[in-house]
Amino acid sequence: MKSPVDIAVTGAAGQISYSLLFRLAAGDLLGPDQPIVLRLLEITPALDALNGVLMELNDCAYPLLHDVVVTDDPKTAFDHVDYAFLVGAKPRKQGMLRSDLLLQNAEIFQVQGKALNAAANRNVKVLVTGNPANTNALLAQRNAPDLAPSCFAAMSMLDHTRAISQLAAKCAVSIRDVSNVCVWGNHSCMQYPDLHHAKVKGIDALSLVGRDWFVDDFIPTVQHRGTEVIKARGASSAASAANAAIKHMSVWINGTDDGDWVSMAVPSDGSYGIAEGLVYSFPCRVVDGQYHIVESLEINAFSRERLRQNEAEVREEMLAIQHML
Amino acid sequence: MKSPVDIAVTGAAGQISYSLLFRLAAGDLLGPDQPIVLRLLEITPALDALNGVLMELNDCAYPLLHDVVVTDDPKTAFDHVDYAFLVGAKPRKQGMLRSDLLLQNAEIFQVQGKALNAAANRNVKVLVTGNPANTNALLAQRNAPDLAPSCFAAMSMLDHTRAISQLAAKCAVSIRDVSNVCVWGNHSCMQYPDLHHAKVKGIDALSLVGRDWFVDDFIPTVQHRGTEVIKARGASSAASAANAAIKHMSVWINGTDDGDWVSMAVPSDGSYGIAEGLVYSFPCRVVDGQYHIVESLEINAFSRERLRQNEAEVREEMLAIQHML
Repeated sequence: MKSPVDIAVTGAAGQISYSLLFRLAAGDLLGPDQPIVLRLLEITPALDALNGVLMELNDCAYPLLHDVVVTDDPKTAFDHVDYAFLVGAKPRKQGMLRSDLLLQNAEIFQVQGKALNAAANRNVKVLVTGNPANTNALLAQRNAPDLAPSCFAAMSMLDHTRAISQLAAKCAVSIRDVSNVCVWGNHSCMQYPDLHHAKVKGIDALSLVGRDWFVDDFIPTVQHRGTEVIKARGASSAASAANAAIKHMSVWINGTDDGDWVSMAVPSDGSYGIAEGLVYSFPCRVVDGQYHIVESLEINAFSRERLRQNEAEVREEMLAIQHML
Repeated sequence: MKSPVDIAVTGAAGQISYSLLFRLAAGDLLGPDQPIVLRLLEITPALDALNGVLMELNDCAYPLLHDVVVTDDPKTAFDHVDYAFLVGAKPRKQGMLRSDLLLQNAEIFQVQGKALNAAANRNVKVLVTGNPANTNALLAQRNAPDLAPSCFAAMSMLDHTRAISQLAAKCAVSIRDVSNVCVWGNHSCMQYPDLHHAKVKGIDALSLVGRDWFVDDFIPTVQHRGTEVIKARGASSAASAANAAIKHMSVWINGTDDGDWVSMAVPSDGSYGIAEGLVYSFPCRVVDGQYHIVESLEINAFSRERLRQNEAEVREEMLAIQHML
């Protein structure tokens, strides 16, 4: 039996985590031979509810679940972790200004960045899903100066799989027939799901679906999908977000498929004119556990404008919390 | 690529199903090479919410999810299914008599039994988790005369894994060190979790934990665990119930481990003096996709009394709905 691997999950009593934890314990991320320790972080008032989740985890008698740590202390949660899912974030409440939301979340991710810096393994993979995800990831990364920036990413995988699903449905093909979709920019309604490089059974996707559908239907559908799910389900996306978190981390560990890429929000290296250091979603390839921004894709004027709008939004978010970087 | 296999889930917009569906689609039951079709049944008023779940399933872009059918018609839901998870049931509301609960659920499972009889594949495996699970399974089975009784089971797997977890924790050993636990009888607070045959690292469990702990602590803890989870979490067990459903079905497909057994509520063949035909939880071994009650275990006076009490409770439930069998 291998040694257990430590995985941290924040916001562990929340809905996304409720869909995530049982899949992690069942081996959905690291496979059927890798024992894990779950290190679960919550704010103090949520510890009682989290203990209820712990009871259920224990009740499953998972052979792979070596131990579960429940804590409200970030350093305890991140102690020697190889993987960290930063799921918890303050939701926007009615009447709350966006700037207040940014600031309140900034405090959380500043603290967590410092704790990761102090406690996590040096090869840790940190995935931020709590919104505003790009800026929260930036904060955590900048507050962890002893960890490589490449240890951090924010999640655009749910946008990515939503885009794949929409394209596959439109073309009446299976998911496996779609490749090279990407989502650029901010994990917000500004995001730019892009089909200029996408292929369906190896054929240029735009030539199949037409530009009007791409601009008038596909882009807004992917951008506003979260709101539509809330309308239909009466609750925000949880199981699909948890699935995307597992998929993002799984690709980060195991690599991308030959010839394909995924969308990941990562610290920019200046590619495509996006200011260095901003956390921004790019098409990425993963080799040996390291992500690399796919370079030299052709970007036309339509795309360039959307990339620029996304950069402006991410930059504006950053300016609001710059004193905490 | 293999042909898709059809899996029905009832009560598909409910909380247990929300924890179940995404795991089925991820391949947690049938593995990474088996495409599936999910056939989701709900009552008409819940179809809107179920369509929200459908949106999330699509958003995941699961390569294995060949299709999803959403319906309020049982025959459509069960059309050519190989596996059916009967999750949906009416919950007991405040002031409702237990007899009313039995009758209202009886109507649901009578209809579903007839629909399974008409539409399902002849080798279907039907797992009832909706409460009262034993009697609901009896109703479905008796209303499906063209299907073998061995196509049906009710779930006592959550009780079974809860019992394993409690014993492993008490002995400070890993889950893998525990075997031959069983839970007898009704999936209710009357259930009898039994350690007389259980082993910890091959050693007789009762000799390790002592009879007082077994009687005064272990039995009531397992019996009332569901209530304790509700108290702690503010909601009933969903993810652990879904996990148990996957485990029950997985064992039913792949077989029990050598020398071990699991607990399954199945139509009695008269073993241990339990009246033939009653759906009752026994220790079962599974070979080639067929469950067999483990015979000839020694039952002492203490255990015999608890088996008898459970039989009386299951029989009483049956009498309340006998006109619908």
